[in-house]
Amino acid sequence: MTVLELQGKAAKEAARILAVAGTDLKNKALDAICMALVRRQDEILAANELDLELAKRNGMIPAMLDRLTLTAQRIDGIVEGVAQVSALPDPIGQVTKMERRPNGLIIGRRRVPLGVVGIIYEARPNVTVDAAALCLKSGNAVILRGGKEAICSNRTTVAIMRDALESVGLPADCINLVADTSRESANELMNLTGYLDVLIPRGGKGLIQSVVSNAKVPVIETGSGVCHVYVDEFADQEMAAEIIFNAKCSRPSVCNAAECLLVHRNVAWEFLPKAWELLKTKDVELHGDRLTREILGEVTVIPATAEDWDTEYGDYKLAVRVVEDVDEAMEFIAQHSTGHSEAIVTENYTNAQRFLDEVDAAAVYVNASTRFTDGFEFGLGAEIGISTQKMHARGPMGLEELTSSKYVIYGNGQVR
Amino acid sequence: MTVLELQGKAAKEAARILAVAGTDLKNKALDAICMALVRRQDEILAANELDLELAKRNGMIPAMLDRLTLTAQRIDGIVEGVAQVSALPDPIGQVTKMERRPNGLIIGRRRVPLGVVGIIYEARPNVTVDAAALCLKSGNAVILRGGKEAICSNRTTVAIMRDALESVGLPADCINLVADTSRESANELMNLTGYLDVLIPRGGKGLIQSVVSNAKVPVIETGSGVCHVYVDEFADQEMAAEIIFNAKCSRPSVCNAAECLLVHRNVAWEFLPKAWELLKTKDVELHGDRLTREILGEVTVIPATAEDWDTEYGDYKLAVRVVEDVDEAMEFIAQHSTGHSEAIVTENYTNAQRFLDEVDAAAVYVNASTRFTDGFEFGLGAEIGISTQKMHARGPMGLEELTSSKYVIYGNGQVR
Repeated sequence: MTVLELQGKAAKEAARILAVAGTDLKNKALDAICMALVRRQDEILAANELDLELAKRNGMIPAMLDRLTLTAQRIDGIVEGVAQVSALPDPIGQVTKMERRPNGLIIGRRRVPLGVVGIIYEARPNVTVDAAALCLKSGNAVILRGGKEAICSNRTTVAIMRDALESVGLPADCINLVADTSRESANELMNLTGYLDVLIPRGGKGLIQSVVSNAKVPVIETGSGVCHVYVDEFADQEMAAEIIFNAKCSRPSVCNAAECLLVHRNVAWEFLPKAWELLKTKDVELHGDRLTREILGEVTVIPATAEDWDTEYGDYKLAVRVVEDVDEAMEFIAQHSTGHSEAIVTENYTNAQRFLDEVDAAAVYVNASTRFTDGFEFGLGAEIGISTQKMHARGPMGLEELTSSKYVIYGNGQVR
Repeated sequence: MTVLELQGKAAKEAARILAVAGTDLKNKALDAICMALVRRQDEILAANELDLELAKRNGMIPAMLDRLTLTAQRIDGIVEGVAQVSALPDPIGQVTKMERRPNGLIIGRRRVPLGVVGIIYEARPNVTVDAAALCLKSGNAVILRGGKEAICSNRTTVAIMRDALESVGLPADCINLVADTSRESANELMNLTGYLDVLIPRGGKGLIQSVVSNAKVPVIETGSGVCHVYVDEFADQEMAAEIIFNAKCSRPSVCNAAECLLVHRNVAWEFLPKAWELLKTKDVELHGDRLTREILGEVTVIPATAEDWDTEYGDYKLAVRVVEDVDEAMEFIAQHSTGHSEAIVTENYTNAQRFLDEVDAAAVYVNASTRFTDGFEFGLGAEIGISTQKMHARGPMGLEELTSSKYVIYGNGQVR
């Protein structure tokens, strides 16, 4: 057996114990993790310092360095996150339906853990604790495989969490870290069938695509977001301008940020200058079609290429296109959307309803910013990622999305 | 583009139309299919005759020939199945939750189709119509890839169904058949990413394993069943004998049939002869451990090999083992179960509850036969297969399991 297979086996055994641990015990473990993270903060900071030194030596860019950095304040934030997970209702054991059949069998369906969850992610050490806490609360053992840049930080936080598990009588192997951060170990994790019930990639497009195309274990695809805001002929234009400004500029790097503005031809001359008033305060780079350039000027708007319509900029850049009507808008979205979040701004009832019905995405909005697609904003209390696939879970994934179900059947001698 | 990619593209376009077709229109299509299958029954029987002739020439075994055969009566049964699907409630559009958030956003979750469903199956022409009807009702376009032995039958029934779709104004491409029945076409279907939202294999272990290990598209693993019946120290032994007899013998070829009997040591000498009284009426071949052979005799019981404990016989054969207690039974099940259906027979409350809690399978029974794991028996009204995986769906899959969800959000200008 390889090292990873041994870890998989240990995780699977721990998962059997964790699956029947009660809510109280799981919360006790989460509380112990909080306390240990606070008490051993210096160890975490020292380990993180090692990661940072190496990263600086390797010339990591400042934005990446910032993501990699832990501070006392950031550790407080992480601890606060674990405490919030502890306070959430436990989905495990919930009975989602129960029925007495004509033959007297009582058939119920209850939520159970998935088993062993793999998380593969990049150089953000906060994900290590976040993901472990969500898996623990939902009764799943976890195998974490973070980026090599954060390996010292991850080793330390995982060691602390494993100690905390043991201190309350749960197996340390409920939380596992893949120590080998080579590409080979990632590939091996993607193919750890028999041990891994699901693998969730968290990170950039490259990581996600690599997991989706290489994994043999079941995957939940997350996070790719080419999101559109369509401003209808019947939009409240002030509202529309605020919405596209917020959807693009409040946090351009995240997956629920808008990448493309579609505007109805009949209001384009009036609306686009209003939107530009706001967007220019953030120096947003517009990539527009012919008419957009005509309206806002060829200095302001770069000509859009075919590639622009499928690009997740993750930056202060926005593709802009004028469309004939709501049908063309929806058709364009069907061709170019990644199925994450799509919004219409309109006061027209029928267009709003059609957009909600016909646009195929994890979240479809009328008169609101796409930026709300988020586990906390949706009231799930926490989030392990945003699924852009249709199987198992779609949209923000909270604790319930980390569960499976089983049928339990109470008989009194029934045969068929 | 290959032929299959063109089919995938056509199916995807049809799926967009079908996704917003109302319940009435879908039912009208199902009713039209029923009528057309009755009206054009002679075409179906003639096509089936061609399949049968070739199969006989190729020396197909009688059991397989029987599965391949259609008769007027069997077509009536198929039509009846479609009519039942038409009568089932439509899951699409159901709102599974809806909440007003503190910021005034109204966030709802509604059921939507998965999109394009692939079904890959063997030489049973009835699956063609069954699967198409379930997909149609749940708003999914379908790509059917049946075995080469049934290709003439499948071509005819699919042509009839496509005509019926067009007669009610739905695109024929809601139902598609892969005409090429080579191994290459199966492989291509398993890798039709971008067009296929899920692939469901229906058939024997070889087919399912091949799909699970080769597919790049999401798969729902179905049907593999090494099911156990554990007779506890505190069992009602008459009930237990009836249950194991039913679980083994009522239909040994299906996946919910029992393959292994576990008996508590304290009752083995009393119980095993009682069970044998029933099992011997069907000449069940027992493969037992040392103690079972001691109790029932070395003539009656073949020595079990390690392989026996992991074999889905699908036949009048049963592995038998004596265990120390409920813990050993559950441990043995954890090691050898395929996670399909597991049963305990006991009058002991604690043992029953522990078995329900701790055994990890799609369906866990107390005092009933494993044979009830079935969409109709569970009240789902129909069944596209029995999932033995934990993602998306577990246990019998009805119409709801062929759906995904989307969040619909009603705002009035919210930004974040």
